[in-house]
Amino acid sequence: MGMSQNPFYQKLQKNWSNGKLMCVGLDVDLAKFPKHLDAVTQIDMRILEFNRHIVEATHEYACAYKLNSAHYERIGLDGYSALKSTIEYIRAAHPDVLVILDAKRGDIGDTNEYYAEAVFDELGADVVTVHPYMGHESLEPFLRRADKGVIVMGANSAHGAGEIQDLIVGKASEPLYQYICRLVAEQWSSFGNCSVTAGADNPEKLREIRAVVGGMPILLLGLGTQGGDLEECIKAGAGKDTFGLIVNSSRAILYASDGMDYGDAAHVVARTMNEALKKAYEQR
Amino acid sequence: MGMSQNPFYQKLQKNWSNGKLMCVGLDVDLAKFPKHLDAVTQIDMRILEFNRHIVEATHEYACAYKLNSAHYERIGLDGYSALKSTIEYIRAAHPDVLVILDAKRGDIGDTNEYYAEAVFDELGADVVTVHPYMGHESLEPFLRRADKGVIVMGANSAHGAGEIQDLIVGKASEPLYQYICRLVAEQWSSFGNCSVTAGADNPEKLREIRAVVGGMPILLLGLGTQGGDLEECIKAGAGKDTFGLIVNSSRAILYASDGMDYGDAAHVVARTMNEALKKAYEQR
Repeated sequence: MGMSQNPFYQKLQKNWSNGKLMCVGLDVDLAKFPKHLDAVTQIDMRILEFNRHIVEATHEYACAYKLNSAHYERIGLDGYSALKSTIEYIRAAHPDVLVILDAKRGDIGDTNEYYAEAVFDELGADVVTVHPYMGHESLEPFLRRADKGVIVMGANSAHGAGEIQDLIVGKASEPLYQYICRLVAEQWSSFGNCSVTAGADNPEKLREIRAVVGGMPILLLGLGTQGGDLEECIKAGAGKDTFGLIVNSSRAILYASDGMDYGDAAHVVARTMNEALKKAYEQR
Repeated sequence: MGMSQNPFYQKLQKNWSNGKLMCVGLDVDLAKFPKHLDAVTQIDMRILEFNRHIVEATHEYACAYKLNSAHYERIGLDGYSALKSTIEYIRAAHPDVLVILDAKRGDIGDTNEYYAEAVFDELGADVVTVHPYMGHESLEPFLRRADKGVIVMGANSAHGAGEIQDLIVGKASEPLYQYICRLVAEQWSSFGNCSVTAGADNPEKLREIRAVVGGMPILLLGLGTQGGDLEECIKAGAGKDTFGLIVNSSRAILYASDGMDYGDAAHVVARTMNEALKKAYEQR
């Protein structure tokens, strides 16, 4: 798989080898929290309590936790505080599990320097998602952090994402998402710390992306909720000799129950998904 | 200029007509603050004090204040708090001046709903900058806020931004930035509340963008620091019958002096730039 000494790749490989295949998306939604958590009146503490419980219930199946910043930013100051304390908790309690901040940042170079500080130093994430639109020179402040990981937006499962991503570009006349994935694999990942995204709704695109990026890990988005088929995705997107996919699931795990048993319920769903993933990798 | 009833366009037009042509970028940098502000030991209060002083020194020349979120996120919880209190202050003290949150957000639709809440409802910004990569369907949560403004990334003055932005696409074989600006003008701005970006380093691109977007306001980035020429930009980018450009300047105004007189110094620079802008508009 061409794994370098980069901790992003190293930890992924180690967790995958140990049968921890799930990326659990900690997409907090206060309205979906179990009612008994209302007793925790401080919102930042309530979110931390929820996230800790989910992490403890799922970490034996998790290669990574993915926190989407929008879910925290909508809650304001308490959201920021909960985001930070959750990342601190995961890093302290489960240092081998990666923390991905799904922030989809992207600005000019000077400004990305500040985003890199915010995401890696201030919040303590291991990996960040970024937009490719301003080119790799602008992304250098993320890319040159060889101790961290950078996931570049490739293809997405969002409705209508093809409006821009499917535009045909370049000498090879390929869709933009494929062109970008090729750039990431061949040029942008000079520190060997990059990854790209693919949508679980389109195994064919995933297959094309795998062909372009070689052994690079791919973050698979939109499984379940957006109609992706697990086995098809593994067949299309697994690496040649190894696993290769960071398979994210959020709501199906987090909100498996809204009762006192939400941890147990999350555990069962994560285990079931993880077993299905193992089987799909074995049978590909 | 095709100004609708949208407050973003309305306020811009009114401020421009009243000779307030500058967009002041409140890019806070604690290391560049005047030394006497160290007496304010609480960081969030120190930033608010600095921003308030700059706003009071420059508002008579300002159509908008632009706050780039990276500059605040790098400071953590205090940065978030200062961002929020600064926006509250501007909206209360100078309700006719627009607040642009330069956050360059962009995710799938469900998630953009949360970003729209974060930016417009939680932080109270009037206008937000967004990435076009996932298409307009994903951007709907921003776009359908007819009482707010949405600035879509078109061209940027960043080194190497052309790597993706200049790719040739579409039936008209035009660069991607131009294709996106065309989409924004012809399709995405159905609520009449959109704008696009252009870099001050390239008047030719600015001219092309103006030709494509008609009377739509254009946010001009990178003037001064990134080598843009004011008069060339106004000639290339002004609207047919009106002003048309949101001309941003940050550091040249904010850090004109690091002494007790930083407000006076900011005032002089903002006034000088504003006069130069007026003259350039008159002489185009």
